[in-house]
Amino acid sequence: MKLKEITKLVNGKLIPTGRENEDPEVEIERIARIEEAKKGDITWFSHPRYQKWLNKTKASCIIVPKWEEVRPQKARTFTIEVKNPSLAIINLLQEFYPEPIPEKGISKLAQIDAGAKIGKDVSIGAFVYIGKGSIIGNRVVLFPNVYVGNWVTIGNNTHIHPNSTVEDRVIIGKNVIIHSGAVIGSDGFGYTQVNRKHKKIPHCGGVILGDRVEIGASSTIDRAVIGDTVIKSGTKIDNLVHIAHNVVIGEDSLIVAQVGIAGSTQIGKNVTIAGQAGLVDHLVIGDNAVIGAQAGVIGDIPCGTTVSGYPARPHNESRKAYGLLIELPNLFKRVRKLEHQLKIVK
Amino acid sequence: MKLKEITKLVNGKLIPTGRENEDPEVEIERIARIEEAKKGDITWFSHPRYQKWLNKTKASCIIVPKWEEVRPQKARTFTIEVKNPSLAIINLLQEFYPEPIPEKGISKLAQIDAGAKIGKDVSIGAFVYIGKGSIIGNRVVLFPNVYVGNWVTIGNNTHIHPNSTVEDRVIIGKNVIIHSGAVIGSDGFGYTQVNRKHKKIPHCGGVILGDRVEIGASSTIDRAVIGDTVIKSGTKIDNLVHIAHNVVIGEDSLIVAQVGIAGSTQIGKNVTIAGQAGLVDHLVIGDNAVIGAQAGVIGDIPCGTTVSGYPARPHNESRKAYGLLIELPNLFKRVRKLEHQLKIVK
Amino acid sequence: MKLKEITKLVNGKLIPTGRENEDPEVEIERIARIEEAKKGDITWFSHPRYQKWLNKTKASCIIVPKWEEVRPQKARTFTIEVKNPSLAIINLLQEFYPEPIPEKGISKLAQIDAGAKIGKDVSIGAFVYIGKGSIIGNRVVLFPNVYVGNWVTIGNNTHIHPNSTVEDRVIIGKNVIIHSGAVIGSDGFGYTQVNRKHKKIPHCGGVILGDRVEIGASSTIDRAVIGDTVIKSGTKIDNLVHIAHNVVIGEDSLIVAQVGIAGSTQIGKNVTIAGQAGLVDHLVIGDNAVIGAQAGVIGDIPCGTTVSGYPARPHNESRKAYGLLIELPNLFKRVRKLEHQLKIVK
Repeated sequence: MKLKEITKLVNGKLIPTGRENEDPEVEIERIARIEEAKKGDITWFSHPRYQKWLNKTKASCIIVPKWEEVRPQKARTFTIEVKNPSLAIINLLQEFYPEPIPEKGISKLAQIDAGAKIGKDVSIGAFVYIGKGSIIGNRVVLFPNVYVGNWVTIGNNTHIHPNSTVEDRVIIGKNVIIHSGAVIGSDGFGYTQVNRKHKKIPHCGGVILGDRVEIGASSTIDRAVIGDTVIKSGTKIDNLVHIAHNVVIGEDSLIVAQVGIAGSTQIGKNVTIAGQAGLVDHLVIGDNAVIGAQAGVIGDIPCGTTVSGYPARPHNESRKAYGLLIELPNLFKRVRKLEHQLKIVK
Repeated sequence: MKLKEITKLVNGKLIPTGRENEDPEVEIERIARIEEAKKGDITWFSHPRYQKWLNKTKASCIIVPKWEEVRPQKARTFTIEVKNPSLAIINLLQEFYPEPIPEKGISKLAQIDAGAKIGKDVSIGAFVYIGKGSIIGNRVVLFPNVYVGNWVTIGNNTHIHPNSTVEDRVIIGKNVIIHSGAVIGSDGFGYTQVNRKHKKIPHCGGVILGDRVEIGASSTIDRAVIGDTVIKSGTKIDNLVHIAHNVVIGEDSLIVAQVGIAGSTQIGKNVTIAGQAGLVDHLVIGDNAVIGAQAGVIGDIPCGTTVSGYPARPHNESRKAYGLLIELPNLFKRVRKLEHQLKIVK
Repeated sequence: MKLKEITKLVNGKLIPTGRENEDPEVEIERIARIEEAKKGDITWFSHPRYQKWLNKTKASCIIVPKWEEVRPQKARTFTIEVKNPSLAIINLLQEFYPEPIPEKGISKLAQIDAGAKIGKDVSIGAFVYIGKGSIIGNRVVLFPNVYVGNWVTIGNNTHIHPNSTVEDRVIIGKNVIIHSGAVIGSDGFGYTQVNRKHKKIPHCGGVILGDRVEIGASSTIDRAVIGDTVIKSGTKIDNLVHIAHNVVIGEDSLIVAQVGIAGSTQIGKNVTIAGQAGLVDHLVIGDNAVIGAQAGVIGDIPCGTTVSGYPARPHNESRKAYGLLIELPNLFKRVRKLEHQLKIVK
């Protein structure tokens, strides 16, 4: 693909190298990371960490944001200035490496209940099980070893990766991606004490995943006692995340790896929860809130607030406090000294 | 089901609404959560959070505990007073939504070693594998895609959900529930350094799960080096929990999601470990201890003690200390001021 | 096995009991843990915790390190002094409990694409799926329910346990062990905002696992955007660990259970990361670094440094600071007292 075509594809501005004998007709063959790129490769500037590579990379072209300071000063390579380099690279990746489409058809080694309803142009792999009363939409892809229980609904274009489990009564929207080993609709963890023994609370509800939801590998979404655990449209969940029974997560939120959210907590829209954070039960987290990595959230969080630490507090305060924590031994010494001096004064 | 019948079923006391034209013969059709309930629904008061809903709910009846302050003052609905609302709702859920019993029989698409011994009235799904020398009890349910290794014993009435793995030599009691994607009997993580390389310690032991144990989705229970990793009867483990080799957990404990317990640690009876807590190896945790969410436990814990924080300390102390952490910047200022004043005094 | 033979096998020094009528020809029948050992058993001293058992155990022999203070003073049992008891016990375990070798052959219930290339003497279980273009080495063991995608390479002698998933384009070295439920090559978690919606960044790269790598049960290793996520030879990863896209981990590192490593972070050689620690993205962790349990790492770590706490700091400092945290309420009181006294002085 020629540089000119790429420039047009990413809606950018091609800036020449400043060196003589430059060839704007250079053929780009691969996309590569900035530190690994060779001649004939295009790369992109994704993180301040890679500043030093701007002048060192062997790539034939770098996609850069429209910030003056980023562009290599002594440009040894072509650069293409764009508004959003990540978006530009998405377009390029899709062009260079189109996603392989699994073959259509239903494997003879799948076991599908006679009462299930299967849409058009599906791809159902070997060792897939589909229970009674389930409805599978058009162009759905179920990779090998996927289990789909009874009375499940799966919307059009949804992909479920190998070894995932979708239990009874789960409703999955359109264009959803469930990654390998995920479990949707597992039994909630709820007991009541009767004669000092744990008596199980039946979880008779379900799980609803909206459109364009993504569930990471080996994440677990428990079903509700009554009603539904709900992940609304556009929300993306990373790997090894735990979502307990009756949790509701609003639209377009991001839940990063290994987060745990306890029962009945309600999360707003456009919320970001960073890795390994934990939220206790029955909380209300407002829209656009941001929860820092490893935070321990034990109270409600208002809309638009950024919190961190344990217990989670406004990030500005928490950052200062945790920054000073390491100075504690020193502070103790200073107080001891003050006490000593005061005795002298007395 | 009529209100009177429900009142009898939950062993409660029916309290009328105080409004005129009330109909104690009202038919209850559904169980619903207090904020979603409609006419014809029964609901329950489960958490102080829902206080405001007591007078707002559209339910025809609310199950409430025997606390004066909880009952709606201007009762717009019937209420049923019970000793334990959770228990009442368990009984109702079981009445309204009886658990579907999987069909009995062995799928033709299961692969069972000729040397395995299968009990009566089992339900063994498609793509289940059972290895040699394994013994499967009566009425056991193995959902599709379950793997059972060699020399495994599974007690009567135990249910193992899809895509779970039970490795060689695991012994599982009666009435156990293993949720989807769980791994029981995986190899422990143990190495010794030989010439600066990690040499694997073989884990030749097993895992023993007592009766009525529950293992959450995608949790992993490693087998012992020698002897057994043991989870005793009545203990319930949530999702994504890691139990390392040679751990022993006593009866009727609760281990919440994403907890990690390192090798050879011994946990007593009736212990509660809240979400994301971590315990280092070779500890002894006494009966009835409670470990807070995200706690980092690096020492033994006596019976009946509640701990939290990192490193875990008695909860009363830890709560105060973490509460003051956020005041650290202020404390530093105060000490600076004192130092300043003292110089003046000098 | 006679004590003399064992002594030779572990390259140790047999020390008699000091009691009369001792029988150095005693037959050892089992290996047992020190607290469970009976007559006829051999055991080993593995942790200071078991000091009291040195004189209490009923074992016929204890393997001990060459430290004077460890050997039971009033020796009631034989002891064998060795340089490395763990290594000695590895050799004994391998002798007493040789690892069962799965039967060779390809199950008729496996589904293998005609375009896949299968080595010699493999063991491929029931319900295994292998996609097109994949290359399986000699003596590879794929347990039942394993999924192997397209264009995957698996080196000689590698074992993959049940219900694991290896996605497209993953390259696995020789003598690798992948435990049950692990996911290798899942899609990375990367989005860019377009019109306030999350647009997915395609992850077109792969994963490379070096030789002798071990991946724990239900761990997830995401594939790269471009290039590869790399786990180099000899590195061992425990259960429920999350490794994000484009992470690189050097040789012979140890990653303990439930650790999370965010995108593009680079880990050196011989690094140890203890349980539940979290590392943010784009970090550089030097060779031989040690990261404490539950640490929150938000900055680079130089070679050979030990860190702990949140945010992670040199362990010596962090340990002191966290140790004093619990004294904060007391410190506040002391400062209040000083303030009070100073006003008096004024």
